[in-house]
Amino acid sequence: MSKTKVGIINVSGYAGIELARLLYQHPQVELTSVTGRSATGQKLGTVFPHLAGIDLTIEAKLGEVDLAFSAMPHQESAKEIIPLLDRGIKVVDISADFRLKDAAEYLSWYGFTHPAPQLLEQAVYGLTELYRSQVASAQLVANPGCYPTGAILALAPVVKAGLIEPDIVIDSKSGVSGAGRTLSQQTHYSEVNEDATAYALDGHRHLPEIIQELKRLHPGQSPSVTFVPHLIPMTRGILTTCYAPLVSGKVADSGKKKLKQLYLDFYQDEPFVKVVELPPHTKHTWGNNLCLIHPTVDQRTGRLIVISCIDNLVKGAAGQAIQNMNLMLGLPETTGLQALAIYP
Amino acid sequence: MSKTKVGIINVSGYAGIELARLLYQHPQVELTSVTGRSATGQKLGTVFPHLAGIDLTIEAKLGEVDLAFSAMPHQESAKEIIPLLDRGIKVVDISADFRLKDAAEYLSWYGFTHPAPQLLEQAVYGLTELYRSQVASAQLVANPGCYPTGAILALAPVVKAGLIEPDIVIDSKSGVSGAGRTLSQQTHYSEVNEDATAYALDGHRHLPEIIQELKRLHPGQSPSVTFVPHLIPMTRGILTTCYAPLVSGKVADSGKKKLKQLYLDFYQDEPFVKVVELPPHTKHTWGNNLCLIHPTVDQRTGRLIVISCIDNLVKGAAGQAIQNMNLMLGLPETTGLQALAIYP
Amino acid sequence: MSKTKVGIINVSGYAGIELARLLYQHPQVELTSVTGRSATGQKLGTVFPHLAGIDLTIEAKLGEVDLAFSAMPHQESAKEIIPLLDRGIKVVDISADFRLKDAAEYLSWYGFTHPAPQLLEQAVYGLTELYRSQVASAQLVANPGCYPTGAILALAPVVKAGLIEPDIVIDSKSGVSGAGRTLSQQTHYSEVNEDATAYALDGHRHLPEIIQELKRLHPGQSPSVTFVPHLIPMTRGILTTCYAPLVSGKVADSGKKKLKQLYLDFYQDEPFVKVVELPPHTKHTWGNNLCLIHPTVDQRTGRLIVISCIDNLVKGAAGQAIQNMNLMLGLPETTGLQALAIYP
Amino acid sequence: MSKTKVGIINVSGYAGIELARLLYQHPQVELTSVTGRSATGQKLGTVFPHLAGIDLTIEAKLGEVDLAFSAMPHQESAKEIIPLLDRGIKVVDISADFRLKDAAEYLSWYGFTHPAPQLLEQAVYGLTELYRSQVASAQLVANPGCYPTGAILALAPVVKAGLIEPDIVIDSKSGVSGAGRTLSQQTHYSEVNEDATAYALDGHRHLPEIIQELKRLHPGQSPSVTFVPHLIPMTRGILTTCYAPLVSGKVADSGKKKLKQLYLDFYQDEPFVKVVELPPHTKHTWGNNLCLIHPTVDQRTGRLIVISCIDNLVKGAAGQAIQNMNLMLGLPETTGLQALAIYP
Repeated sequence: MSKTKVGIINVSGYAGIELARLLYQHPQVELTSVTGRSATGQKLGTVFPHLAGIDLTIEAKLGEVDLAFSAMPHQESAKEIIPLLDRGIKVVDISADFRLKDAAEYLSWYGFTHPAPQLLEQAVYGLTELYRSQVASAQLVANPGCYPTGAILALAPVVKAGLIEPDIVIDSKSGVSGAGRTLSQQTHYSEVNEDATAYALDGHRHLPEIIQELKRLHPGQSPSVTFVPHLIPMTRGILTTCYAPLVSGKVADSGKKKLKQLYLDFYQDEPFVKVVELPPHTKHTWGNNLCLIHPTVDQRTGRLIVISCIDNLVKGAAGQAIQNMNLMLGLPETTGLQALAIYP
Repeated sequence: MSKTKVGIINVSGYAGIELARLLYQHPQVELTSVTGRSATGQKLGTVFPHLAGIDLTIEAKLGEVDLAFSAMPHQESAKEIIPLLDRGIKVVDISADFRLKDAAEYLSWYGFTHPAPQLLEQAVYGLTELYRSQVASAQLVANPGCYPTGAILALAPVVKAGLIEPDIVIDSKSGVSGAGRTLSQQTHYSEVNEDATAYALDGHRHLPEIIQELKRLHPGQSPSVTFVPHLIPMTRGILTTCYAPLVSGKVADSGKKKLKQLYLDFYQDEPFVKVVELPPHTKHTWGNNLCLIHPTVDQRTGRLIVISCIDNLVKGAAGQAIQNMNLMLGLPETTGLQALAIYP
Repeated sequence: MSKTKVGIINVSGYAGIELARLLYQHPQVELTSVTGRSATGQKLGTVFPHLAGIDLTIEAKLGEVDLAFSAMPHQESAKEIIPLLDRGIKVVDISADFRLKDAAEYLSWYGFTHPAPQLLEQAVYGLTELYRSQVASAQLVANPGCYPTGAILALAPVVKAGLIEPDIVIDSKSGVSGAGRTLSQQTHYSEVNEDATAYALDGHRHLPEIIQELKRLHPGQSPSVTFVPHLIPMTRGILTTCYAPLVSGKVADSGKKKLKQLYLDFYQDEPFVKVVELPPHTKHTWGNNLCLIHPTVDQRTGRLIVISCIDNLVKGAAGQAIQNMNLMLGLPETTGLQALAIYP
Repeated sequence: MSKTKVGIINVSGYAGIELARLLYQHPQVELTSVTGRSATGQKLGTVFPHLAGIDLTIEAKLGEVDLAFSAMPHQESAKEIIPLLDRGIKVVDISADFRLKDAAEYLSWYGFTHPAPQLLEQAVYGLTELYRSQVASAQLVANPGCYPTGAILALAPVVKAGLIEPDIVIDSKSGVSGAGRTLSQQTHYSEVNEDATAYALDGHRHLPEIIQELKRLHPGQSPSVTFVPHLIPMTRGILTTCYAPLVSGKVADSGKKKLKQLYLDFYQDEPFVKVVELPPHTKHTWGNNLCLIHPTVDQRTGRLIVISCIDNLVKGAAGQAIQNMNLMLGLPETTGLQALAIYP
């Protein structure tokens, strides 16, 4: 049986090379074409020695494939994708270009006029756990941002159940690979090592994405969300701590136990979301597609605390993209994604 | 002119050795005696090679000094200190034993009955910026915990001014040295490296300390505080992000500018607190006694965000202890503490 | 077709949990029993959350298996293994107990009298690339130490070809996981982070193992080997730099090119050894079973320099053990070991 | 008494900002002018917040000073320095431009024709421990490279005493700050973290500097030196491990003890070189000007092993530069350099 051919547009960033790594061990698809913004004409294994097992040359233009991943930066990604869609090719877009439903947000948050607003409705937001059936029949999936993945999965059960007041604080701590492979003073080893800092205090581009999805989970409610991302000295991983007041009387009596059961029920059949007993460690997701979630109640204040952990390059990017691809191709959702986290 | 003699009870933890390092370069006092729970009888420089410049032997019992620092664990510290106080010796206690004013809290939070409740009133809480004059005339100073130092300094101006609603979330990210030198799976390099995690979700012992001080800043108001500490892979540094709703109408109009001015005014003469323009980095405090504070407003939600950075072993422990000592001895507050942070 | 049953004696160290991780994704064998020195009676996934996908309880005694891995400490490992051998079970020993051919070395290097010297001859030294056929028919394989794996693979081609004088310096840099999961001041995060140090200057236990194998590669020559291991602040990985004078006239004329060809020929059919063009990075082996080797010549001095990189827990322990298991069970050597390194 | 005015040419690299940090706490000199290749016109404390205590603006041209430090890159440094020398200003050059005595080496190692070969003889090589009296009377001091500082101090006693054969291997492990503040893939956090690698296998520019000085220590002998630098995941510190055969019969009988005494005697009056009992840690030099040296003998092979540790930005650059400045200005050598290492 021949494998489905897939390709990666812009393999040379961290999301792109992580896609290549994961696709290499996928039993049902074959990575047949990769493009790059740089390094065109070079062997993939020359530029990225850990991918030497993959015998491909970085091309300027994507070859014939059945499904393409785009790991281009926003704005450029849409340009690459639109022609592919016209040719009937399925696409998973790692960029932000089709995540937001409201075209106006692209102007205010990303500074460009969206080139194809009509596609925003058609595109499926690829947080698989929330939109599984739509993903399965989609031609275009907008893969969620890394922060939104951890934050929305952490909050979805209580938001949907109407258990929290819409005053939400999301405090995220991310490894440096989330800032990409591009060089900057902010990713220089000597600057980042032994350092912690907050950034984007005036509003991170992932905020409208989080708000959009929280609203869809609880239509009619407009949550007031403060989201502060932090950079901490590790390569992979995002730990997100969410805070919100519990709606009076709904959880307080039975407390943590009831809350935990709500989460267990909500995620009971999910292969990649685990509700855990103890505060989770990002390290327990290193290199794999899991999202670990720990909900609890601050009994003194009646506040919900939920913590989630993901590997930003896997569940937060390439892994979730493949999870979506599996559904789009009619394959079992976990195919090629079963490797355990590497620890320690 | 002879220097004042000072000693360290339990030099062998991280707070103790940091005291020794800083006292070595202090021009007005002389470290003349150090005790240890282990390594008694050994030269200080044998156990801690970086202290080889200090010619002292670790003793079982403190020699004659004018002022003593206790870096003993809680409960044991009080036992050591009480006899010293009886002999008229000044003491700065790095432990928690005299921080809380309500003796009952020791039973509920630390699990022991306080041996000298009458001293709790006499002891001065050594957050120098808030209690400078009391520290100057104190015999016993209770040096604040590392987390409370960063959190209270971040919140003091707005709490005192009544600008925030008492619904406060404090999310702290700490380096591993805060967990001390004692061995545990939680401080094993291979477990901590490339990992982030939250802990003490049922209530950290620094919470009552934070609440006590916020109440003293705004008597009559009982703040609802959720405090979640996190461990991140670095040795030194605490970054604390505080969130609270601004009281309607009081800041909104002029916004960030007014808020910043409030902080600049509040800390205008402080040598060790700097209000900074950009989100601060823990690395900018590495090895020195500064607390960097960045207040801002999330305009979308009307929420205050304040971020502070300290070196947990300096401003969060040994440095602040020396700052207090300087006042207690009538020396200029900054003596011996002027070294710049080491960067990168 | 039923899978072969395998077990792990002492799953609770880093080599043990890495074996469990890799065996979980092995398609031909099933991990059916694990024992522990601690945590007996607990679920594997409770103690090690990243292994939650494996539904096993840590037992006190190994269940029925066809092949067992022992990850016990030396001396204790032999005690566990001998009864298994008597019952006809195949064993891969991760400890040092059957690596040395000369029983006397156990007394001088490990401080105990070997309990079964007769087995030392029977045991096959499991550096797969050198002893492939013997491993395939062995009942007992002594899995090499992490340092010897990197050092011997780096030197084997030139030693066998008689191209170097027997004056060899081996300088190794290891991540901290090599020191195991046991707690010590030397593995405390705050002590190891931002630190490099050498250790075992009087002779590391892996030295006799290295010498034994270099002698077997070039019988009649007794190499003078200085081996210095260093601990550097990372979790996984060993980079080994080897230095030796080239035999006069044999390489000098054609230089690096000839040398490289020798290595390419020596390792041409090896799935897990790659001779690379540029100085290798340990990161390019993170989590996988590769050994990367870069041989070159210091033209100014006529000295050989060879650098090798491995993941100490994979090719240096658990991965190589499974590579050996595959041969012992008649499976393709690479089964279950094809995952690419995780990068970055 | 007025302080001596000093300036820094190119303050904006890591050596430059470390000079600024150390000069700030120097009691006898005043930093009055700093220039930069970028950030001209900005306050020093705006670009480098940890230097906010220094009230200086980054200038395009150096103001009037009595002594200047140049932290310019090689080739550009000489251009800046020559006019200063003509005006009688004393200069400590952190670059390589005046380290080598043979002008021809600049063409072969640095790729440029030296603009002022006559100054090479006049310039004093600023390894203070070897050239103290010459430094004191010099107008131009060439501050040694970071690797040469650690390597030459490690080897000087045995080379001078003629105790080793001239077959020397120098294996150095450096923190990332040694690569400077300039951006490159090689200093990106995600690439460097959890990675070790060797580089410059065809010859590092510090090699001719090392050989020159070893020859001066033992005229008539031309040492065959292989030097391999490695990059390891830490910010500061260089650990250098040196290997060489001991001259037969000279040390063997009394061994390590005799060797250690030789080192103790050689460095007995040195304030910044400590001969230590145990293998040293780079962490024990973090932020200060010490070089720790541990000599030993591999008894099995008769080989000398010497290990040295320095902070590459202090003893390996800015600290040693100030040590030299002190001598050039007739100040006590240790002025402003007494701070202990920061640990942990």
